[in-house]
Amino acid sequence: MGNYQISSDVLPTLADFSLPEELGFGEVKVPIMYRADFANGEWQTAELTPYGNIELDPAAKVLHYAQEVFEGLKAYKVGDGRPNFFRPLENLKRMNRSAERMCMIEIPEDIYMDGISLMTAYSEPFIPNGSGKSLYLRPFLIGTRSNLGMGVSDTFTFMVIASPSTIYHAGHMKIQIEREACRAARGGTGAAKTGGNYAAALQSAQNVQRRGYDQSLWLDPVEMKYIEELSGMNFFILQNGELHTPVLNGSFLAGITRDSILALARHQGLTVIERDIPIQEVLTGIQSSAVSEIFACGTAAIVSPVSLIADADGTTYEVQKVDELAATLRQSLLAIQERREADPYLWTAEVDGSYYSEK
Amino acid sequence: MGNYQISSDVLPTLADFSLPEELGFGEVKVPIMYRADFANGEWQTAELTPYGNIELDPAAKVLHYAQEVFEGLKAYKVGDGRPNFFRPLENLKRMNRSAERMCMIEIPEDIYMDGISLMTAYSEPFIPNGSGKSLYLRPFLIGTRSNLGMGVSDTFTFMVIASPSTIYHAGHMKIQIEREACRAARGGTGAAKTGGNYAAALQSAQNVQRRGYDQSLWLDPVEMKYIEELSGMNFFILQNGELHTPVLNGSFLAGITRDSILALARHQGLTVIERDIPIQEVLTGIQSSAVSEIFACGTAAIVSPVSLIADADGTTYEVQKVDELAATLRQSLLAIQERREADPYLWTAEVDGSYYSEK
Repeated sequence: MGNYQISSDVLPTLADFSLPEELGFGEVKVPIMYRADFANGEWQTAELTPYGNIELDPAAKVLHYAQEVFEGLKAYKVGDGRPNFFRPLENLKRMNRSAERMCMIEIPEDIYMDGISLMTAYSEPFIPNGSGKSLYLRPFLIGTRSNLGMGVSDTFTFMVIASPSTIYHAGHMKIQIEREACRAARGGTGAAKTGGNYAAALQSAQNVQRRGYDQSLWLDPVEMKYIEELSGMNFFILQNGELHTPVLNGSFLAGITRDSILALARHQGLTVIERDIPIQEVLTGIQSSAVSEIFACGTAAIVSPVSLIADADGTTYEVQKVDELAATLRQSLLAIQERREADPYLWTAEVDGSYYSEK
Repeated sequence: MGNYQISSDVLPTLADFSLPEELGFGEVKVPIMYRADFANGEWQTAELTPYGNIELDPAAKVLHYAQEVFEGLKAYKVGDGRPNFFRPLENLKRMNRSAERMCMIEIPEDIYMDGISLMTAYSEPFIPNGSGKSLYLRPFLIGTRSNLGMGVSDTFTFMVIASPSTIYHAGHMKIQIEREACRAARGGTGAAKTGGNYAAALQSAQNVQRRGYDQSLWLDPVEMKYIEELSGMNFFILQNGELHTPVLNGSFLAGITRDSILALARHQGLTVIERDIPIQEVLTGIQSSAVSEIFACGTAAIVSPVSLIADADGTTYEVQKVDELAATLRQSLLAIQERREADPYLWTAEVDGSYYSEK
C-alpha cells in the first residue's frame, strides 16, 4: 500500500448517501473520490475525500492539449463475500501504456490499487448485489501544468471515481459502416484510452444515430478495408462455426473483455482466429450465411449482439442469428466476474481486507 | 455586446499586478479571466473576474472525452493608439468550425468579442509595446457535463485567458519527416483546433527532439506522401521563385497567418500556388536548388525559417537560403499587425472604446 489519508468527512458523507432506484450506467456517482497528485517529481500523499469539484488552472494542459487517459473496470458484489475486481492489473497495464503514448507519468501499482480498493471498500454498501449490477470504477490521469505553449505536463492528477451501475444495455445493435472517416490515424493514438479518440468519434456517432443506427463500425486507417472496432467495443464474427476477431494492430483498443472472451471461447472448444477481417468478407458472409452471428464486447455491456450492419449507402445486411453464442459467452463471463461459478483463469480478486481498517 | 458583469475585484487585482522582466511565450498570465457558461439551453451572464482556478466536476466530459477546442490570437499595442486585434473574427469562425466538428455549442459573436475585448481593454497596461511583443489571447471552450458514459456534453464553459508574450522564437528550424505516424486520421479532426490533435503529436515531438531536431514534419494520412504541416505551423516552400504551400484539404489547420502570408506574397508580386506537395519533390528540389527556401508560419512565431529537413533515416537536406523571403514576409506582416504600416486588407481592428467604460 502507498501513502494515503482518509478525510474525516468520508464516513459522514457515506452515511448520508442512499442509492436512487434507477441506476443506469455511469449516471450515479458514490459520494467519495480518491486523488493522488504528482508534483515536484514525486507522488504526493493520496487522499480519499467526499466527492466534489476539483480545481484546475484555466491554462492546465488537459483543458487545451487533451493530455488525459482513463480506464474503466468493475467491482462486483453478488452473494455474501467481499466485493471483487475482475483482472484489475490488466487495466493498470493498459493505462500505463496509454500514459506512455501520451507522454504522461507512469502510475505506480500501489497508488492505483489503493485508489480502486479504497473506493470499493468504502462504497461497499452501495454496490448493488443483483446479477448484472456492479460498481463501475473510473481511474483517470490528467496533465495539470499551467502553460499556454505546446508541450508535455510535468504535473499530473490521478483520480478514481465510481458509479453503481447496471450493465450497459446496448440491445440488439444495428451498426453502420463508417466509410468517410477513420477513428484512428496511422501510428496514432488508436490503441490508447485517451480522450481525443472519443472526441473524434462523436460526430460519426451523431450521424449514424440520426440515420437510425446505434453505433459506427470503424475501418482501418490505411486501406479503409479491414474492420477495427465499434466506438468503444471490440468486434467478433462467427464464421463457419469459428470465432474471428480483428487481430491487435496498435490502431484500436486491446479490450480486456475481448481477451477474456477469446479465452472463454477457446475453453468452450471453439476455434478462435485473430486476423485482419475485410469488411467485404463479412457482408458477403452474412448474405451467404457463412457469417451466422456478430457481436461486440466491452467492460460496460460485456457482450452485445449485432443484429444488422448497414453500409454507408444504406444497404442493410441482417444477421441470421442474434444473441446465441453472444448470450452464452456473456453469461459465462458474467458468472465468473460475479463469482457465481469457478474461476479457472484466476481473473477475479477480492478487495484486500486491510482497506477496510479505518471503517 | 452581450450580457456580462465585471467583478469588483478586477481593478484592485490589476492594480497589484506587475509584469516580470522576462515574458517568454504563454508563460505569464494577466491576472484576470473572462468566462461564459452555457447551461439549460442558453448562455448565462458572462463575467470578468480575477484569474484563478476553475471548478470542474471530476466526471466532466473534457477530462475524459476531450470535448475541447481553443484558439490563439494576439492583441498589439505598438505606438500610441488603443490596442488592436488582427483578424479576430477569422479565429471565431474557425473556433466554431472546430466546435461543430467536436459536437459542441456555437459561440455567439457577441460573447466572443466581449471576451477578447474586455480581456484586452482591462489588460492594456500590461500589453508590452515593443515590436514583436503582444497580448496572446487564448479563447477556449470545454464540455462540462458530469457523466461517465460516452456522448456529447450539453453544458459548456467558454473562457478567455491572456498572456503578455514576446514573439515565439522558433529560430532556424531543423525539422524531421515523421514517416511512422500521421498527425490526423482520414476524415478525422485534423482541421479542428482541438486538444486530441496536439496530444497525439507529443510523442513524435519528443522523439525528434531527442534526435536533435526542433519539430516533426507531418505527411498526409492516406498515402503518407504529401506534406501537411508542422505540429501547429503551416508549411511553405519557395520553388523556382514561386511560393508553394499545401492546399487546404480538411486534414490540417487552415492557418490565419497562412492565409495572410498568401495575400501578402500575392500583393508583393509573387506567384502563389496551393497544391498537394509531395515530400520527395521537396527533398529533390533542395538538392537541385529548385527549392531555395523553406519556412513555416503560425500565430505565435508568425514566420520561422526552416534551415534543414532530415528524413527518418537520418539523411539531411540543408536548405540553400534561410530567412530571406521569410524575413521579408514576417516583417511585412508584423508591420501591419502592429499598425506601423498601412493595412490595405482591413485586417486590424481597434478594441471598441465602449469596453473601457467601467474602468
